[in-house]
Amino acid sequence: MTSPPCSASGPLVAIGGAEDRKSDLEILKRVFALAPEGNLEVAVIATASSIPDQILPDYEAAFERLGASHVHLLGIRDRRQAAENETVRLIEQSGVIFFTGGDQLRLTNILGGSPVLNAIRKRLDSGAVVAGTSAGAAAMPGTMIYNGAATDALRKGGVNMTFGLGFVDGLIIDSHFLERGRLTRLMEVGATNPEYLGVGLGEDAGVIIHPHGILEAIGSGHVILIDSRDLASSNIADLSMGEPVAIENMILHAMVSSHGFDVEARRYLVPHELGAILAEGR
Amino acid sequence: MTSPPCSASGPLVAIGGAEDRKSDLEILKRVFALAPEGNLEVAVIATASSIPDQILPDYEAAFERLGASHVHLLGIRDRRQAAENETVRLIEQSGVIFFTGGDQLRLTNILGGSPVLNAIRKRLDSGAVVAGTSAGAAAMPGTMIYNGAATDALRKGGVNMTFGLGFVDGLIIDSHFLERGRLTRLMEVGATNPEYLGVGLGEDAGVIIHPHGILEAIGSGHVILIDSRDLASSNIADLSMGEPVAIENMILHAMVSSHGFDVEARRYLVPHELGAILAEGR
Repeated sequence: MTSPPCSASGPLVAIGGAEDRKSDLEILKRVFALAPEGNLEVAVIATASSIPDQILPDYEAAFERLGASHVHLLGIRDRRQAAENETVRLIEQSGVIFFTGGDQLRLTNILGGSPVLNAIRKRLDSGAVVAGTSAGAAAMPGTMIYNGAATDALRKGGVNMTFGLGFVDGLIIDSHFLERGRLTRLMEVGATNPEYLGVGLGEDAGVIIHPHGILEAIGSGHVILIDSRDLASSNIADLSMGEPVAIENMILHAMVSSHGFDVEARRYLVPHELGAILAEGR
Repeated sequence: MTSPPCSASGPLVAIGGAEDRKSDLEILKRVFALAPEGNLEVAVIATASSIPDQILPDYEAAFERLGASHVHLLGIRDRRQAAENETVRLIEQSGVIFFTGGDQLRLTNILGGSPVLNAIRKRLDSGAVVAGTSAGAAAMPGTMIYNGAATDALRKGGVNMTFGLGFVDGLIIDSHFLERGRLTRLMEVGATNPEYLGVGLGEDAGVIIHPHGILEAIGSGHVILIDSRDLASSNIADLSMGEPVAIENMILHAMVSSHGFDVEARRYLVPHELGAILAEGR
């Protein structure tokens, strides 16, 4: 396959927002279960949020219920705080690093190039699990969407993108995908460059990104995939900014919990296929 | 091709809602231009609407600006009115028959099996143009959607369907498609029966359904097509009602004005291809 490798060192979990935090914690339980053996410390980073004091206690309670030994609540409001030794130290000792929702541009603007982000990348390389919901999911790839036209973003320039946190390559992630009608955002991105898989996460749904670009859907909602690799034609390069984009041939999948996808092979995996691949430890 | 024939006798125009009625009337102008030669009478049917007196004057003014010789404003509020000889007579003499928006279930409940509907079918067979916006578009096929779950309708039973007005076969039409985030409605229908093409009309966008199932996109917005013919797998038949549906492989297109699609051949038509086919008079 000629795709850019879809890979992350440790397991990544991207969640579409509004995951259950108070009832059976289905998604957070899966996140926590991916923590490396013997390390049950959790760092929750609320940099994306404008109301960290309102959302952090829910995550603290949820991860404590799941058995966390410590839950470090990290507001990280500015670049100075993103360089603090004490915060870096807490990241270094955590087995689970969780990004809350909010605005993904706050995440990259505050964390980009910071000691805290470098520490998170090292933890991921060492096998810690990095998870994020909503903005925290959208920011994971090398390139992210941070804004888009409200209803029909399939107009040249209708989606604003920039560098993301760089935890995974080969795909683009959008959250609240069905609840906010974001189909056209991933279609627009696919038209600009068909090489990258569009991953549209519904609410209370997520994907575990296993090694070698194997996606596993989790949660009660849908994970929509938009594969533009076989794009046959589009007028996008010929348009003026704002004009509507035509698209011939993208492929659409809808994954539910326990279904999967091999990003490099562009292959849908029904549960027994996904199970066999994960059992092989590929 | 093994698809059910997509055909209508006269030209049909399905519009996604919120078409321009006051400025340059791009879509309504195309509708009016399809009137059979020498017949510039227009019948506007507001049966779907709960506020016919508020919307009929806009259509009256628009069609008069376009050159209509008469604009007949037909509220048709109940089945008794749908049987009135005078109303049937006005339909019989109109070259353009236009359905407003509202609730498509009102359209079928009031017009189903009525003398007015029979008269409209005869006019269509005689070459009159039949157009409809929003509910008036959704009701056109043999089977229509009349309700769906608000955010994620891709759950078994998440879409409610019934018989439509039967003006066209082989496809299903949804309106306000991008503005109301209705992607999952057409995916759900495609999973239940992959034979039927999903046509998702954005606002101020529409399709002319030419003879032999050739679609032509018109207006400023997008017409999204969801082709489920190559559906590879879905769990829908194994689920309980309400459970999330998995889908492997649907094909997605986005048409803009002057692009087209051959429903029976399942072939996207870029403007010069569409132009050549329409010039042939196929």
